[in-house]
Amino acid sequence: MGYAGCMLNRDYPTQYCSMASTLEIIGERWTILIVRDIFLGIRRFDDLQRDLGVARNILQSRLERLLEYGIVVKRPYQERPVRYEYRLTTKGADLWPVLVSLLHWGDTYAIEGDPPIVLQHRGCGGELDDRRRCVACGADVSVTEAIAVRTGARRPEAGTDADPSAVGAGISA
Amino acid sequence: MGYAGCMLNRDYPTQYCSMASTLEIIGERWTILIVRDIFLGIRRFDDLQRDLGVARNILQSRLERLLEYGIVVKRPYQERPVRYEYRLTTKGADLWPVLVSLLHWGDTYAIEGDPPIVLQHRGCGGELDDRRRCVACGADVSVTEAIAVRTGARRPEAGTDADPSAVGAGISA
Repeated sequence: MGYAGCMLNRDYPTQYCSMASTLEIIGERWTILIVRDIFLGIRRFDDLQRDLGVARNILQSRLERLLEYGIVVKRPYQERPVRYEYRLTTKGADLWPVLVSLLHWGDTYAIEGDPPIVLQHRGCGGELDDRRRCVACGADVSVTEAIAVRTGARRPEAGTDADPSAVGAGISA
Repeated sequence: MGYAGCMLNRDYPTQYCSMASTLEIIGERWTILIVRDIFLGIRRFDDLQRDLGVARNILQSRLERLLEYGIVVKRPYQERPVRYEYRLTTKGADLWPVLVSLLHWGDTYAIEGDPPIVLQHRGCGGELDDRRRCVACGADVSVTEAIAVRTGARRPEAGTDADPSAVGAGISA
């Protein structure tokens, strides 16, 4: 490691490394949570802003970078006035394993209480393990075969939501 | 999503989410690359500093946070004067799937040219796919059964290193 002189990246200039280069693209604050929300079907600027509670100018700049990197595309969902929503490209959808691995580690180590979201094999209903395999039927599950299900769990102090509901994965066709 | 009022985190205060909580811990600049280096067997402060090219005070503060979170432990490797190295705990070693998923995405989308590092099944020598399964023998590979192998690849402009060498995974027993 440590190929000094290979000036590839702004944030990690000495690193010629796939991981460092990935962090260049998705490592910025909020970016991965924006991608998560789009996976969960939250695709419109105002909805993203409301869900994340992030400043509009920051959200705008992160979305512009995601567009620039080809991780999301903008699609009109309304004509007059024209309004856009954001969809993941294949490159964006391929970030799913990163999100699943962050989710699994966080379920174990980063939150108190029960996981607020579990991933299931669509149709079969089995949960996904950390290799994105269905624990019920053993299938390797792809992003389009998975659903994210809200368990209703909140922080232990806040009690439990009585109304779990399913949310779909928002991948661009 | 969007449990406003659940003030869990500093960076993402509105989010009760395993992923957001994980980013609280490992999402800071440099942190995941420090963890990567320790996985690769680079465990001493000066070696980490040299490999990463990061300012000493930043490295120090990131290592302190990793200690505080129980992701690494300090072990003396020399008595007079006493000198320490950093080892991953189980909690730290369990970040391996996160690193593998970042690496795989980066190999495909974030670097130009060939991957500088490939992951292999120790002994068997098969490469690992993005589910951390050996493509040669089909085994689910754990972190202790994997090795990271430098391919010698550099940025396309810089030519290719003629001397690939293997580096082991630096997990604390």
